[in-house]
Amino acid sequence: MSEGSGKKDQSNAMWGGRFAASPAALMEAINASIGFDKRLADQDIRGSLAHSDMLAAQGIIGHDDRDAIHAGLRKVQAEIEAGTFDFRTALEDIHMNVESRLKEIAGEPAGRLHTARSRNDQVATDVRLWVREAHDRAVAQITGLMRALVTQAERNTDTVMPGFTHLQSAQPVTFGHHLLAYVEMLGRDRSRFRDSRSRLNECPLGAAALAGTSFPIDRHATALALGFDGPTRNSLDSVSDRDFILEYLSAASICAMHLSRFAEEIVLWMTAQFGFVRLSDRWTTGSSIMPQKKNPDAAELVRGKTGRVFGSLVALLTVMKGLPLTYSKDMQEDKEQLFDAADTLELVLAATTGMVEDLQPVPARMAAAAGAGFSTATDLADWLVRSLDMPFREAHHVTGRLVAEAERRGVGLEELPLDAFQAVEAGITADVREVLGVQNSVRSRRSFGGTAPEQVAAQVAWWKDRL
Amino acid sequence: MSEGSGKKDQSNAMWGGRFAASPAALMEAINASIGFDKRLADQDIRGSLAHSDMLAAQGIIGHDDRDAIHAGLRKVQAEIEAGTFDFRTALEDIHMNVESRLKEIAGEPAGRLHTARSRNDQVATDVRLWVREAHDRAVAQITGLMRALVTQAERNTDTVMPGFTHLQSAQPVTFGHHLLAYVEMLGRDRSRFRDSRSRLNECPLGAAALAGTSFPIDRHATALALGFDGPTRNSLDSVSDRDFILEYLSAASICAMHLSRFAEEIVLWMTAQFGFVRLSDRWTTGSSIMPQKKNPDAAELVRGKTGRVFGSLVALLTVMKGLPLTYSKDMQEDKEQLFDAADTLELVLAATTGMVEDLQPVPARMAAAAGAGFSTATDLADWLVRSLDMPFREAHHVTGRLVAEAERRGVGLEELPLDAFQAVEAGITADVREVLGVQNSVRSRRSFGGTAPEQVAAQVAWWKDRL
Amino acid sequence: MSEGSGKKDQSNAMWGGRFAASPAALMEAINASIGFDKRLADQDIRGSLAHSDMLAAQGIIGHDDRDAIHAGLRKVQAEIEAGTFDFRTALEDIHMNVESRLKEIAGEPAGRLHTARSRNDQVATDVRLWVREAHDRAVAQITGLMRALVTQAERNTDTVMPGFTHLQSAQPVTFGHHLLAYVEMLGRDRSRFRDSRSRLNECPLGAAALAGTSFPIDRHATALALGFDGPTRNSLDSVSDRDFILEYLSAASICAMHLSRFAEEIVLWMTAQFGFVRLSDRWTTGSSIMPQKKNPDAAELVRGKTGRVFGSLVALLTVMKGLPLTYSKDMQEDKEQLFDAADTLELVLAATTGMVEDLQPVPARMAAAAGAGFSTATDLADWLVRSLDMPFREAHHVTGRLVAEAERRGVGLEELPLDAFQAVEAGITADVREVLGVQNSVRSRRSFGGTAPEQVAAQVAWWKDRL
Amino acid sequence: MSEGSGKKDQSNAMWGGRFAASPAALMEAINASIGFDKRLADQDIRGSLAHSDMLAAQGIIGHDDRDAIHAGLRKVQAEIEAGTFDFRTALEDIHMNVESRLKEIAGEPAGRLHTARSRNDQVATDVRLWVREAHDRAVAQITGLMRALVTQAERNTDTVMPGFTHLQSAQPVTFGHHLLAYVEMLGRDRSRFRDSRSRLNECPLGAAALAGTSFPIDRHATALALGFDGPTRNSLDSVSDRDFILEYLSAASICAMHLSRFAEEIVLWMTAQFGFVRLSDRWTTGSSIMPQKKNPDAAELVRGKTGRVFGSLVALLTVMKGLPLTYSKDMQEDKEQLFDAADTLELVLAATTGMVEDLQPVPARMAAAAGAGFSTATDLADWLVRSLDMPFREAHHVTGRLVAEAERRGVGLEELPLDAFQAVEAGITADVREVLGVQNSVRSRRSFGGTAPEQVAAQVAWWKDRL
Repeated sequence: MSEGSGKKDQSNAMWGGRFAASPAALMEAINASIGFDKRLADQDIRGSLAHSDMLAAQGIIGHDDRDAIHAGLRKVQAEIEAGTFDFRTALEDIHMNVESRLKEIAGEPAGRLHTARSRNDQVATDVRLWVREAHDRAVAQITGLMRALVTQAERNTDTVMPGFTHLQSAQPVTFGHHLLAYVEMLGRDRSRFRDSRSRLNECPLGAAALAGTSFPIDRHATALALGFDGPTRNSLDSVSDRDFILEYLSAASICAMHLSRFAEEIVLWMTAQFGFVRLSDRWTTGSSIMPQKKNPDAAELVRGKTGRVFGSLVALLTVMKGLPLTYSKDMQEDKEQLFDAADTLELVLAATTGMVEDLQPVPARMAAAAGAGFSTATDLADWLVRSLDMPFREAHHVTGRLVAEAERRGVGLEELPLDAFQAVEAGITADVREVLGVQNSVRSRRSFGGTAPEQVAAQVAWWKDRL
Repeated sequence: MSEGSGKKDQSNAMWGGRFAASPAALMEAINASIGFDKRLADQDIRGSLAHSDMLAAQGIIGHDDRDAIHAGLRKVQAEIEAGTFDFRTALEDIHMNVESRLKEIAGEPAGRLHTARSRNDQVATDVRLWVREAHDRAVAQITGLMRALVTQAERNTDTVMPGFTHLQSAQPVTFGHHLLAYVEMLGRDRSRFRDSRSRLNECPLGAAALAGTSFPIDRHATALALGFDGPTRNSLDSVSDRDFILEYLSAASICAMHLSRFAEEIVLWMTAQFGFVRLSDRWTTGSSIMPQKKNPDAAELVRGKTGRVFGSLVALLTVMKGLPLTYSKDMQEDKEQLFDAADTLELVLAATTGMVEDLQPVPARMAAAAGAGFSTATDLADWLVRSLDMPFREAHHVTGRLVAEAERRGVGLEELPLDAFQAVEAGITADVREVLGVQNSVRSRRSFGGTAPEQVAAQVAWWKDRL
Repeated sequence: MSEGSGKKDQSNAMWGGRFAASPAALMEAINASIGFDKRLADQDIRGSLAHSDMLAAQGIIGHDDRDAIHAGLRKVQAEIEAGTFDFRTALEDIHMNVESRLKEIAGEPAGRLHTARSRNDQVATDVRLWVREAHDRAVAQITGLMRALVTQAERNTDTVMPGFTHLQSAQPVTFGHHLLAYVEMLGRDRSRFRDSRSRLNECPLGAAALAGTSFPIDRHATALALGFDGPTRNSLDSVSDRDFILEYLSAASICAMHLSRFAEEIVLWMTAQFGFVRLSDRWTTGSSIMPQKKNPDAAELVRGKTGRVFGSLVALLTVMKGLPLTYSKDMQEDKEQLFDAADTLELVLAATTGMVEDLQPVPARMAAAAGAGFSTATDLADWLVRSLDMPFREAHHVTGRLVAEAERRGVGLEELPLDAFQAVEAGITADVREVLGVQNSVRSRRSFGGTAPEQVAAQVAWWKDRL
Repeated sequence: MSEGSGKKDQSNAMWGGRFAASPAALMEAINASIGFDKRLADQDIRGSLAHSDMLAAQGIIGHDDRDAIHAGLRKVQAEIEAGTFDFRTALEDIHMNVESRLKEIAGEPAGRLHTARSRNDQVATDVRLWVREAHDRAVAQITGLMRALVTQAERNTDTVMPGFTHLQSAQPVTFGHHLLAYVEMLGRDRSRFRDSRSRLNECPLGAAALAGTSFPIDRHATALALGFDGPTRNSLDSVSDRDFILEYLSAASICAMHLSRFAEEIVLWMTAQFGFVRLSDRWTTGSSIMPQKKNPDAAELVRGKTGRVFGSLVALLTVMKGLPLTYSKDMQEDKEQLFDAADTLELVLAATTGMVEDLQPVPARMAAAAGAGFSTATDLADWLVRSLDMPFREAHHVTGRLVAEAERRGVGLEELPLDAFQAVEAGITADVREVLGVQNSVRSRRSFGGTAPEQVAAQVAWWKDRL
């Protein structure tokens, strides 16, 4: 990156050079960004098309020049798409590679393209476009994953499973309800990417090196042409701001964290010990001689790649900490972290979506686990409060004694005879049985957002309306 | 934190106890959260007031019970405010401390407060309220800092200083323009906190332990009473989601990063070598025997405390990575990170606002630095393009030769005689002088968002309308 | 912290003051470190005792002054230990609090204590001593935990359990072998703390503000008196180096990561689904009405607190990044991160040790899980290689076909009749049975470091010699 | 990575396949590591050579097989070095790529190579070798940088410059002394890498999948052959330990932090405002039309790339947090972080060494800055203590008044007439002048490790003996 006057020019042929020494190989390694910033080729060309259109419309360059530049850029674009473009390290970055080739194609008009522009605002615009598209991809993929989860949830509104705290079975819930918890998380993730996209959607083009320009440019026109809501309002900020990348990385980190939680659950559920779900060979690997083994590789990588996204966030936060305005070379470190995090997010979202579509619950294993222990004890306590008007804290004690009695007899609460109930609390009637047992428990939790199948179905319907 | 049935009860008198062994001192150290969660006292009481109101309105408890509970909670609140409340570690957390004292005051009705509620949704609601208020404080403080910056910018719309890239003077800008760059950053920070606040503003109360409840509660009523937009939609998610804290920490990290950049600039500007600004003794410390020393302690701490906020973000991201649903004890680690980051953000925003108000620019030092070198060479190149219709890349070469000539003569470009200009490029006329010199350069950059005083003044006016 | 000439003096009575304005409350909040650095009281006094001894020995102060200083410092020390010392925020830090009280006690000689010393080298010495002791505590606690693990391993050299990859049972191992894996990790952690301690054990006292001093001090004497290997070699480095804290935080992070892995296993093993171990009520909490619930709170907090230690490391790395020499106020952020990480490490090591001592394996559950599937298939393949001289890759294919046959019949490999073996591979003899079955498998893995009970016993013996 | 029985086989031709579905492209993207682990080719082949040697020596394979394997591996090695080797994604990783090609070359004996080995211990060995070599490179490069610094320091033992605290001039020091501060930091960095190398130098080969093997292998022999101090002691730990990478990343992070501090100083010193040093065009870039501009790109990238190394450390710490034993697929994330951090460290060490060699101090600018203010006021205070036996705190007050007097007169302390000194403190004699002035100040600080030229020269000599 560079100020408009061509900070990096010394290492390419375009620059006449005041540096006596030729740049060391090491310095080239430090400076050259073409290895990664060629991913900005499409954005760079679109920016140049819009810029030259505006220059012509404002009378800063001629319409003939504009046309020659456009024709040349279209050809460069075609070469890049066809894979025939020759990226050259000596030209350092994507901007000089494109411009250099444009000059070969279009001749003198190519030299007019950079009028009223600097590499600083050019790259800021390119990256802004790229990040905006990364946001759009994230939103689309998250939506796809939410749909897959809602579809599974719809099939499982009354599939009972244990609701865990501390990985200990606490109260029965439904599998559909459990899956919808992730839909909520992903819904917030999506909303976070949308807010971030909206915040970044201002166009830095025209900030020039850092101070603006004396040419009579029309920044609103280029902003509009490139799909931005308008131009940025401060040229210094425009070339030194990186928080739109940091916000992307933050949202990606939180989303990756959510996916890591789901991945952890898949790993657990796939163990011989839990056995709650099955995944096909598409998302697992096995051993040719240990057929019972279904290694949940995809889930493990989704979980593990979380570290990678967090690492990118920490890396860029560290880079930006304490940097004075405006551009410093340190900031060149932004792109590789961004690209890696975006690629990773894309991969883990796709893999998770695939796993969700593929997931086969094993209701018998889930139900057996949900009914074990005394997972409906709180239902009994609630019944005491509701039916006998007992204060909750007292109902809690009574329930404790009933559970102890059931434990002594080696039976579940629902199997305890009525007289055993009444021995502890005389007011208990046969109606108490309506709240005991896993199915009864689940069905009773009809509060808004609760686990009762009708509530889960309502939430499924609500989301289907919105996806 | 705990499921509703009282996970932590074993270490306090309220719980009858199935654990033979008394909890070790170490386990107490691990479990007790009252040392930090007492900061949630106010939120906890407000939540209980709303909950008991709703229980009475729904006929789940009597109105007399509601009144007794309210009177008791108001008394607890008064005791806490007065500093006479006795926080007890044996009661582990703020919820049991409040409830236990309530029982002493209100007797039997206190036992009905926890009906249709669990510590899980109770604490989720408390923290949600606290974080929401932390957002509001951040927005208010950022707005204050923006106002201070705009006020300084208004005074300095034409105070010339160097615009730096690589900490090398690149092009002249105005101090007002430079300060407004931070207004833009902070404007995005503020918008980020506002989006986050809006996203988190759903009420988890009524999610109970994790599955919802069989009581006929009205979650919309409690949500409304507590200022939420509505209830959360999934009870499992409600008790295990922490992304509203992570989003706060992300926004705080980005904001702290912005402040660290400004702090770095103050440290630089305060050096004997730069000498661009002065700060009073309110924000610096000195040495009794080295009077020239003005240590910018406040700025250094603003810069340094960035690490603290990043650390909190990393800590909580790490905690949450790979945790299965729903609640695990690990999550108790959220509160100290949150409180520390919020306290830190409050401190650095206040200190930065104080420094901005106190800041005295030294225009002579700034202007001298802005004019050094050939900082208006790009203006000359632009003039060649504009006036002689020269392609930009060619204008660039011509300018390079003129600068070399000026350097040879040891003068600035504005001091070069016309014939020297014409010796390099015959078409140059005396009009060229209009773009040379720092003042001319700054004045010419009239593109939208540029550094020309009229542009800066326009941005000041724009922001004043909005602050 | 401060240069010797008294950077912070302006906010306390000792300093005559050149600052017109009184320091703002905010600045006090920023500057005062007494809230946390009082933990350095003991180190500070020990440093002053050694320093004054040396000053007297070198004839820089009189022996009477030395005696008065010593008597005063002993009294201060006693007051602090007794809890009667009055720490005052107005005196900002521990150094000024101690010196101020010393002056009240000892009068004029107190003013000679600070000769040839600065707060910069004083605090560097205090922190160095504190960190050294934190290393010693870590080494002692890790050793204790290793002993507890070795003791458990010794009891379980032949307790068979599944060896997992991907949390899928892969090959049978012994519980003792599994526990010794953590002894290896902790052995490296301990060695890491020892190396770090050895590296930091140089004394910065005598570096003065930053440049050394013109007094004829004897830095080797004070270094020796304080248990250091010698003085540091560069005074600038001595007051600005923080890598001894960062190395502590790195070693603590790696150790916390190891403990988090073990904690995760305890959480898994404690589930109803695994049921591999039991922990008493000392390390778990329950629910008064769900008696089956044994929430492994201690393990969860050990796992969760990992984030806290990582956060401290990231915080201090961020603080130090890009700071010019020598001291900047930013560095005051080091102590709270250090103290918090050290307290956390101490807590999680103690909790893990307690859990290891308390842990009761459930051999029946472990053995059943170890034998499920075809976990000894690789033993069969190895037998084919060894006994029939079959290339490994071919043996692998043959085994796959035998497993498929056993799976078809619904039996384990050890239950397959000989003719079924021979139908696939004619050369197989009855001897093959010696390697089938969990016990045979485990016993056969006698390679160095393998899971055979004799190997495990040998490793137990090796460690017992060293602990 | 995989257990020995061939976890990944399903996606390559070697595996007979129990997976009905062919692996999705996504799964391939998730699983394939050949894109990065081909950097382990050399280590992989060396490991196989040692392993097959041992197998033959132990009689587990024949000598003919050993010879065929060796010849084949040498050919593979040659092909890789020549760049003619065809790496195939379908074969997933480096191990299968090498083995598959070996089979084409050597036929049936190739199938015997994997006897008594698994991909788990194979990759663990490969990575261990790679990391060990990365340590060796780091030690060599750090030594080179230390030498460059000592050489510069030797040239500048009496070049006076300001010693800064808070970036404010505090006391004069020498440039040589300043540079040696970094030699101390780097000395500790080097020692850290050496300790880490020594700790990791144990050979995991022979741990097999996770439990050891029943073949009569000789792990001590392979360890010796590969330059290890011996075999690892626990097979489970051997395949799941990653702390040798984390320790490398920690040491690299601390080293990168040190380099970032020096880089920050270069950026500052290169400003027009400081002007303390010059760097040639090899390490800076300029602007063709702003000749005064010397952008310190190399220094900025050294500073910026710190974030990258921190990010890798955080990434892997996150990955490993809470993973149960033994191998999980998450761990495959280790290699890219390692490679990136090692490449980055290599680059920044080389760039810093180049800059140090190139650095030209500007003594006049340094000296002028060192003498400004009253930077020798502490020398005056020390003189009062020493010559008049004044308590330090009183001397401090007297000096404050003398500085105030000098400031009032607008002169330096060394220019103050004797009667002015005596008006404040009657006991002051003309001898006081010996300690005033920058040169006198620097020369007087002869305490061990102090800034006096003779001390700096002694430290230079000490280091030259050791480098």
